[in-house]
Amino acid sequence: MRLAICQASATLADKAKNIATVHKAARAAACWEADLLVLPELFLTGYNIGSRATELAEAANGPSLAAISEIAARESCSICIGFAERDGKSVFNSSVLFDAEGNLVALYRKIHLFGPKEQELFTAGDELVVARLGDHTIGMAICYDIEFPEFARGLKRRGADLIVAPTANMLPFVEVPTTFVRARALENGLFLAYANHCGAEAELEYTGMSGICGPDGLDIARAGIRGEALLLAELPTSYPAGSLSTQLDDLRLPPEK
Amino acid sequence: MRLAICQASATLADKAKNIATVHKAARAAACWEADLLVLPELFLTGYNIGSRATELAEAANGPSLAAISEIAARESCSICIGFAERDGKSVFNSSVLFDAEGNLVALYRKIHLFGPKEQELFTAGDELVVARLGDHTIGMAICYDIEFPEFARGLKRRGADLIVAPTANMLPFVEVPTTFVRARALENGLFLAYANHCGAEAELEYTGMSGICGPDGLDIARAGIRGEALLLAELPTSYPAGSLSTQLDDLRLPPEK
Repeated sequence: MRLAICQASATLADKAKNIATVHKAARAAACWEADLLVLPELFLTGYNIGSRATELAEAANGPSLAAISEIAARESCSICIGFAERDGKSVFNSSVLFDAEGNLVALYRKIHLFGPKEQELFTAGDELVVARLGDHTIGMAICYDIEFPEFARGLKRRGADLIVAPTANMLPFVEVPTTFVRARALENGLFLAYANHCGAEAELEYTGMSGICGPDGLDIARAGIRGEALLLAELPTSYPAGSLSTQLDDLRLPPEK
Repeated sequence: MRLAICQASATLADKAKNIATVHKAARAAACWEADLLVLPELFLTGYNIGSRATELAEAANGPSLAAISEIAARESCSICIGFAERDGKSVFNSSVLFDAEGNLVALYRKIHLFGPKEQELFTAGDELVVARLGDHTIGMAICYDIEFPEFARGLKRRGADLIVAPTANMLPFVEVPTTFVRARALENGLFLAYANHCGAEAELEYTGMSGICGPDGLDIARAGIRGEALLLAELPTSYPAGSLSTQLDDLRLPPEK
């Protein structure tokens, strides 16, 4: 599989402009024959939309997501992107996965909302989501989810071999994109694609450092802190025998008392 | 400036196939509005061509380089690539820089040939080369050149603010792509783009780790060890005051005795 990770600045509340950014990234990804493009959390509207989340939220079959689906189909490249999802009276911090024909194959609602602001704006999801895409089983995560080893382990136990994590990681949390992303990949023996914003949105300054880690815990590609980047990288199809550290079957815990 | 770094495996002695790889990378780079694409050392023929270097060498205005020039013009993206250059009876390990109109703006002949094999196959160059491209002054380097601080310093003193280094760095030299590339960027306060092969060519196993460093010594983008990658990254236009460590004017040495 060939993966594309888009690190970019969204324009707050300007869906048309952000969809244009998605399209540009998807075209470049498709030229390089990438199979899947991953974009940041809430990228459709920008992350720092505050109370406008409600008004800007759309159903997963709303017009903006339909535009993303069309881009996936036109460029023959699967797309994972974060967006504010309306479902009845609830608004979720969600991500979708469209396959290369534009079909919605996964919809995930962020379980671990970060801080009081997100918890005020969004309803928390309560379901781990995995979906089949080509030869891979994709596990869906968003940002803060990745800080809990139990979360990635849950996806692994459901068969995930590639976790896609749109994110909006900001200062001062500079260790999250490297330490946590590498740890989750290594301790579960899977690929992890982490797509962050860059630049600033009002008081928030993002840390960039989007990347892809392999099951050996090493970076396959990594962006820097500042500036937009599109990382196009081929995932190794195999690793040398004995090169993967953590064997899940070795996990032994005494029973809880 | 938006930069593209292509980490790829060349097919030994198959120029047409390698030119096709260049074209694919250039198309993707152009979709992302990259200004300059950098490819590895001797990428036109593959690095490990041994004694076939003589037969495969071409003049800088030969047919394969003309094809690269056309790709640059067609995609409106400057291209830097390494190739075996014939000039009369001499064969050089060279790199060219074509601008986005396909004009040859720099031709550099590798000064620091690596090991007895390169020294047997190629004539060493004897001239530092810088060239103007858009708002930047590009310094030309190839692989082993980057291990000598005097080399990058020479380019800096000639005005370079971006060094482009096609390379063929192989095992066991795993520290070169990170330590040296970051050091040269930081000690000279310039950008350094380092494009390596990946995979193996006969007995040589390449270390990948292609990347772009900024004048603060930090990675702007970095590929992993294994697998092809195309890194597309925006170079920051400015750095916060005081964030660049080494000020060349501070250099003080007692006179040589």
